[in-house]
Amino acid sequence: MTMTVKARGAHAADQPFVALDIQRRAPGANDVQIDIAYCGICHSDLHTIRSEWPGTLYPCVPGHEIVGHVSAVGAAVTRFKPGDTVGVGCMVGSCQHCAACEEGLEQYCENGMVGTYNGPTTDAPGHTLGGYSQRIVVDEKFVLHVRHPQDQLAAVAPLLCAGITTYSPLRHWKAGPGKKVGIVGIGGLGHMGIKIAHAMGAHVVAFTTSESKRQEAHALGADAVVNSRDEAQMAAHRGSFDFILDTVAAPHVLDAFTALLKRDGTLCLVGAPATPHPSPAVMGLIFGRKSIAGSLIGGIAETQEMLDFCAEHGIVASIEMVRADEIEVAYERMLRSDVKYRFVIDTATL
Amino acid sequence: MTMTVKARGAHAADQPFVALDIQRRAPGANDVQIDIAYCGICHSDLHTIRSEWPGTLYPCVPGHEIVGHVSAVGAAVTRFKPGDTVGVGCMVGSCQHCAACEEGLEQYCENGMVGTYNGPTTDAPGHTLGGYSQRIVVDEKFVLHVRHPQDQLAAVAPLLCAGITTYSPLRHWKAGPGKKVGIVGIGGLGHMGIKIAHAMGAHVVAFTTSESKRQEAHALGADAVVNSRDEAQMAAHRGSFDFILDTVAAPHVLDAFTALLKRDGTLCLVGAPATPHPSPAVMGLIFGRKSIAGSLIGGIAETQEMLDFCAEHGIVASIEMVRADEIEVAYERMLRSDVKYRFVIDTATL
Repeated sequence: MTMTVKARGAHAADQPFVALDIQRRAPGANDVQIDIAYCGICHSDLHTIRSEWPGTLYPCVPGHEIVGHVSAVGAAVTRFKPGDTVGVGCMVGSCQHCAACEEGLEQYCENGMVGTYNGPTTDAPGHTLGGYSQRIVVDEKFVLHVRHPQDQLAAVAPLLCAGITTYSPLRHWKAGPGKKVGIVGIGGLGHMGIKIAHAMGAHVVAFTTSESKRQEAHALGADAVVNSRDEAQMAAHRGSFDFILDTVAAPHVLDAFTALLKRDGTLCLVGAPATPHPSPAVMGLIFGRKSIAGSLIGGIAETQEMLDFCAEHGIVASIEMVRADEIEVAYERMLRSDVKYRFVIDTATL
Repeated sequence: MTMTVKARGAHAADQPFVALDIQRRAPGANDVQIDIAYCGICHSDLHTIRSEWPGTLYPCVPGHEIVGHVSAVGAAVTRFKPGDTVGVGCMVGSCQHCAACEEGLEQYCENGMVGTYNGPTTDAPGHTLGGYSQRIVVDEKFVLHVRHPQDQLAAVAPLLCAGITTYSPLRHWKAGPGKKVGIVGIGGLGHMGIKIAHAMGAHVVAFTTSESKRQEAHALGADAVVNSRDEAQMAAHRGSFDFILDTVAAPHVLDAFTALLKRDGTLCLVGAPATPHPSPAVMGLIFGRKSIAGSLIGGIAETQEMLDFCAEHGIVASIEMVRADEIEVAYERMLRSDVKYRFVIDTATL
């Protein structure tokens, strides 16, 4: 038993977005059927559908920043009921029995988490299809409660990827009162990082190469804004940061930021460049016992914690809504950083 | 008041080692005068005296793996008396009031620690002169008690740099029972890392590119030995290490080792390559929240802890003794890795 729903996707890397009819399974005992209201556009969507990352399966329907309402639940579902406002992020499955899953860190599942799109599934067509669609059916373990007001739902969608990708490392490396935290890049991820780190109580410094973003960064919650191309501004912050979250995927000189860390500080990368960053100077790590780390989204329990934290603090993404037939245009604008700060698809336009 | 002592050093980067008469200050109130018995040869000595690192001041007398006996103490010295067996490592001073110094991490002194050689001093000739000499005068704060048997003193000398450089990160990243720890490179640093990590109770895997070192690595305490050029051997250890200490200063592919880390594992570098390592893959850090870190020697309190730990566990370096007129030859052999595993100068030959 399957149902047909409308979606947007592509049949090949070099093909444009087209309207598709895709199949969703009827909800099993543990499934939640969600009528999708909004889906954010993440840079990963573009990398995948254009096969800029290896392994894309077609037809490809991207989208892993999903909010909507429950329209049916399986017999064994206990945590959701029809009408609930819910979210789905980057994962819809994991092995549930490895050390990572047992610790609630499904994103690091040792047997491979199942992505919300392009992941393995027994459903047709053999790989998962994402949130650029009217409806999705997901195991309740991977469904999140959304407690924001209904009029904020579109702006909640990006929390499911951009929000958790910044919240998780900020929590892990203990951003909070008394800590000086840097956020590098003021885009889809970075603007969430500024809002969240500020709400956590940290002293937040935003780094940008665009002088024009200075006032916006303050408005997002930055206590200070540094133009990372200005050596004097950078030098004034040497050795002063507990933690720097680097959201920039374009190759850049990491040494400029490790130099700003205190002893035992960490520079955490959440963007992966298509070509390598210049190799970081080892001496810059040795003198100060500093670290360069990476972080991947967050676990399901932590994603719920993030959503509740954001609801409590009134945090949503800053978004621009687009219609389903504007996705290609949105991608091109995203590539030019011409968006403040995240595009969200209104699925009513599918 | 100064005294003249014999030393070995050079007058310029391109000049050979020669016998020198150098001046030592008479002990001040807080000073300990040490008659040096042995001094280890560290690769840093060679980098410095040949000006391979910037800023070498001449005449240069290297040596920061010093053991000897107290021959006089200043009026205010409370922790040492003539006849005591003592050691001096890489530092002879620090500001004593910054956050790092207050935490006992003088190696990260925010105002710059004073190196045992080539550091700033008011003593003639204006920079510190190291342990390739008969005698040294050091503030008691930077003097360590040596509790090993007298017949092991020569082999204790390398603990003051090679020992603490490996002990400190192994302690910081909690090597011990239940932990799987890798040591990359089996040289002056690496052979100490294997001995110390083994004594800490960790499961120790040694990585080498020399199949010939397999038996020796086991003898040093390695539970397993991996030829890092053998992909099948490397693959068998994927995702299994809590911590890997990389002692290799030659440029190499760090991704080969980050791939072997567990989630949240750390690859710690204690060698700085003359030319950069290939840039590490960011995806290799993101998938598993892994870190690449650096570490610099250790603080004074921790160096004492290390010496006591080694005395308790019967750990010394594996050494080859050389005469003062053999230093150049020792340097050439060190560059060919033709030493098992550390040269130590018998200062009686000065």
